[in-house]
Amino acid sequence: MQEIPALLLIDIQKGFDDHAYWGGGRNNPQAEANAARLLAHWRTQGWPVVHVQHNSALPTSLLRAGQVGNEFKEEVRPLAGELVFGKTVNSAFIGTSLQDHLTENQIRSLVIAGLTTDHCVSTTTRMAGNYGFETYLVADATAAFDKTGFDGQRYPAQQVHEVALASLHGEFATVLTTDQLLEKVSA
Amino acid sequence: MQEIPALLLIDIQKGFDDHAYWGGGRNNPQAEANAARLLAHWRTQGWPVVHVQHNSALPTSLLRAGQVGNEFKEEVRPLAGELVFGKTVNSAFIGTSLQDHLTENQIRSLVIAGLTTDHCVSTTTRMAGNYGFETYLVADATAAFDKTGFDGQRYPAQQVHEVALASLHGEFATVLTTDQLLEKVSA
Repeated sequence: MQEIPALLLIDIQKGFDDHAYWGGGRNNPQAEANAARLLAHWRTQGWPVVHVQHNSALPTSLLRAGQVGNEFKEEVRPLAGELVFGKTVNSAFIGTSLQDHLTENQIRSLVIAGLTTDHCVSTTTRMAGNYGFETYLVADATAAFDKTGFDGQRYPAQQVHEVALASLHGEFATVLTTDQLLEKVSA
Repeated sequence: MQEIPALLLIDIQKGFDDHAYWGGGRNNPQAEANAARLLAHWRTQGWPVVHVQHNSALPTSLLRAGQVGNEFKEEVRPLAGELVFGKTVNSAFIGTSLQDHLTENQIRSLVIAGLTTDHCVSTTTRMAGNYGFETYLVADATAAFDKTGFDGQRYPAQQVHEVALASLHGEFATVLTTDQLLEKVSA
């Protein structure tokens, strides 16, 4: 990694604790703990941290502003002075000034973690890669839920997670584990 | 469908005929024929068609401008007067004026098909949905290749294709078959 990377934590919010609401079967229960390990390292180093918060516009969403589910999980609660970008769609780059912020601060490298692998994390990672950021996605600091296809076929969360990461790796981002990432940025 | 939708055909180019180059295992050999069925219907109706062409900036890419692989496949070759947007990254919305074009022409609904399901089609579909377009993705008019995860695990093309579609359906787009789509727009 040639540049100091910003840590981009996507939608690690309490609303995701209701697994059934999101399709059930949530994989990788360690995602939040691994995201917290990354965050602790970034804070120790004084590197840039960006928290992304989903403020759903849907009246019934657990992530709607004002709901408990909209709050960040305790493990990654932003400190005073840390940057929070609110968004209403999956991509952290759409409807926000995130791209401008990164450009203005000469940030060219991003480490991405958060929820969920195949929705907001994948969409944000795709745009980060396509915008030309050197992008790292931390496999075990993200997680997915079961999905149902348009034809009714069910896909378990672990499969959704793994396939989403395989589609991103080498095309939009370098996918690695928390241990690998921390070793890389400490080298 | 309340509006006349534009047909967005993504990267249906000869370079994808070299399956091994893209990872092998290509699924759904009928994708191009189904895209051609959609195109024929759009032409008959005089509805807007947008061809998207990947002009890779990579020196070794089969999709680099000037290579045979950069050309559109015969089944969907643009007619004189049909719009072609060139792009250099996965998303048809990044580095192009596609969004401006659609807005200026009051196009609010998109039908998406092309190559490949989990890379350019998925990325473009995600951004289309997040930008607020009423987005339809035609499952059997797209196809994928085998993928290898960051840990070396292989995922067959059909699985990559199905899981990618399941992650998009209901969140970014309505996924349906060519038959279902043609029935819907003929209703």
